[in-house]
Amino acid sequence: MPCPALKNDLLLRALRRQPVPRTPVWIMRQAGRYLPEYRELRARAGSFMALCTTPELACEAALQPLRRFPLDAAILFSDILTIPDAMGLGLHFADGEGPQFTKPLRSEADIDRLKAVDTPAQLGYVPATVRLLRQELAGSVPLIGFAGSPWTLATYMVEGGTSRDFRQIKSLLYANPAALHRLLAVLAQSVADYLGAQIHAGAQAIQIFDTWGGVLSHAAFQEFSLRYMREIIAALKADPDTAGAPIILFTKGGGQWLEPLAASGCDAVGLDWATDLGAAQAQVGGQVALQGNMDPAVLRAPPERIRREVAQILGSIQGRSGHVFNLGHGIPPDVPVENVAAFIDAVREASK
Amino acid sequence: MPCPALKNDLLLRALRRQPVPRTPVWIMRQAGRYLPEYRELRARAGSFMALCTTPELACEAALQPLRRFPLDAAILFSDILTIPDAMGLGLHFADGEGPQFTKPLRSEADIDRLKAVDTPAQLGYVPATVRLLRQELAGSVPLIGFAGSPWTLATYMVEGGTSRDFRQIKSLLYANPAALHRLLAVLAQSVADYLGAQIHAGAQAIQIFDTWGGVLSHAAFQEFSLRYMREIIAALKADPDTAGAPIILFTKGGGQWLEPLAASGCDAVGLDWATDLGAAQAQVGGQVALQGNMDPAVLRAPPERIRREVAQILGSIQGRSGHVFNLGHGIPPDVPVENVAAFIDAVREASK
Repeated sequence: MPCPALKNDLLLRALRRQPVPRTPVWIMRQAGRYLPEYRELRARAGSFMALCTTPELACEAALQPLRRFPLDAAILFSDILTIPDAMGLGLHFADGEGPQFTKPLRSEADIDRLKAVDTPAQLGYVPATVRLLRQELAGSVPLIGFAGSPWTLATYMVEGGTSRDFRQIKSLLYANPAALHRLLAVLAQSVADYLGAQIHAGAQAIQIFDTWGGVLSHAAFQEFSLRYMREIIAALKADPDTAGAPIILFTKGGGQWLEPLAASGCDAVGLDWATDLGAAQAQVGGQVALQGNMDPAVLRAPPERIRREVAQILGSIQGRSGHVFNLGHGIPPDVPVENVAAFIDAVREASK
Repeated sequence: MPCPALKNDLLLRALRRQPVPRTPVWIMRQAGRYLPEYRELRARAGSFMALCTTPELACEAALQPLRRFPLDAAILFSDILTIPDAMGLGLHFADGEGPQFTKPLRSEADIDRLKAVDTPAQLGYVPATVRLLRQELAGSVPLIGFAGSPWTLATYMVEGGTSRDFRQIKSLLYANPAALHRLLAVLAQSVADYLGAQIHAGAQAIQIFDTWGGVLSHAAFQEFSLRYMREIIAALKADPDTAGAPIILFTKGGGQWLEPLAASGCDAVGLDWATDLGAAQAQVGGQVALQGNMDPAVLRAPPERIRREVAQILGSIQGRSGHVFNLGHGIPPDVPVENVAAFIDAVREASK
């Protein structure tokens, strides 16, 4: 079935640094717990993983925010940890806790047993969700696919879950870097395959979430995170079937590494709120588009304050092309829905 | 009693960007739980606060690392939260937990009831510890005094303890900035008084710990954290009795704000490991000294790896003047003592 033409291509135009009549906007974790209908769907699914692995339910979750707000993109509903789960680490989400693995990597032998994932065979529910979503979206807005960066996936796989100090993965990095490089290479191959499959299934842009790149030193970031993201980008850009989908790299806390990030081959760099968007534009805006970067905490303030922050961020940059508005991190669960509406509205109005 | 002449003035020379024969080194939280003798002393004191508030015990804690390692500075043993404790918030440390306040600030009325602290009257144990330490050090190495930044103190006072998302303080910041400014003004006055008293008592350099400045947006950092640190520096530099002590500003996660930090009036800027020291030197090394910046996680690796990291950091900068070696954050409790010895030794040897 041929895909219908895209009615709103603002996101793709902005990512390609083409002129746009206003700044496109989407929200990291826009399908999520701040929406009452999401909480209802999540309860109905029984578990977060059931929601992720059932295409009809995941598709419904992704569509929910688009029914409420005039967002300029949909994003696949999934989790970055589907890949380690498919590798056999046993992902689960305890209530009120972050993600946890029942079988985290505890030795070099554990690392050397891992095999790169075969997306169609092991993660078929993800491309299935992408296909269903493209059908349901019917060309209204573009669909973003995503994956975690190899470094970020490795942190969860070695720590067993979320960490405050990254003690185990950093001990591995400094004491046995060769083993970590083997793990990252398998992950890079898996992520490239996984993102390629998402694009084949219909994802029109890609975001790589390097959520924990910012905990590394300047030198270690380049060696253990950026290098593998570059490999993934090179693989996707080398294949004519996947080369057309713009790639956004988002390294949380990576504002000091904009130049190497922009030189990675990606089309856009995601920024958190610590970075001055105008300064970033002056530094790398000639090479890549920029995405971001409002502090999600602003969404707890009154609408008037939200509008002021949006205007300040838009005012810090020159022109409108090459910018996708977003938060600098995922939206928190306790944000009032009406404030999200005010935020989207403010971006649309103030960027005209 | 006149103070004896300083035998090792490397730290002060480096902070003033004067020539040094080798790079001075000290360690944030060098008096701490990684030392068995500290754990013994802490157990003997009964509680962390008893250790802080008893000058003989605090003095002993500060001297312990100097007996083991040829460090180039001592630092006052205390906690940044002594000021809010003196303001009546009731500081305590539950075992294995971070600091907690029994009476956190819960309303604007709570903020407006606060009065700036009078150090001699309310925090006399701190200058008493400084005086005792100067006497015991007998001019061997300089003594660093310290305080938390107003913003960092405010985060604990409003959140009630350590936070992951800074939800309450950021809600205050965005919804009621005037109340937060009143709180920060009282804290800035208190910190200036407190640091002035430490210098009067004998502290020869000062570090301001802006541990949580890095969680703010670019614009909010300048308005809510840097502004008040500038006020404190200006107050200390305006008084001829306190102007001589070099001031180090350490904003964790502040690597993107080096220029405003360097223009604050401070003598040195502390860096965490995300910043490339050579790039920082090129950017602001003409204005201020730099302190840092090894990832403490390296201290869990074998001594050979520690030596390589030290050499890499020293190799990234031009010359030796204007640099104080340190970690990019406090030393963790699980680091082997012999690795700390290897670290100090590596800095001394490789920087000659």
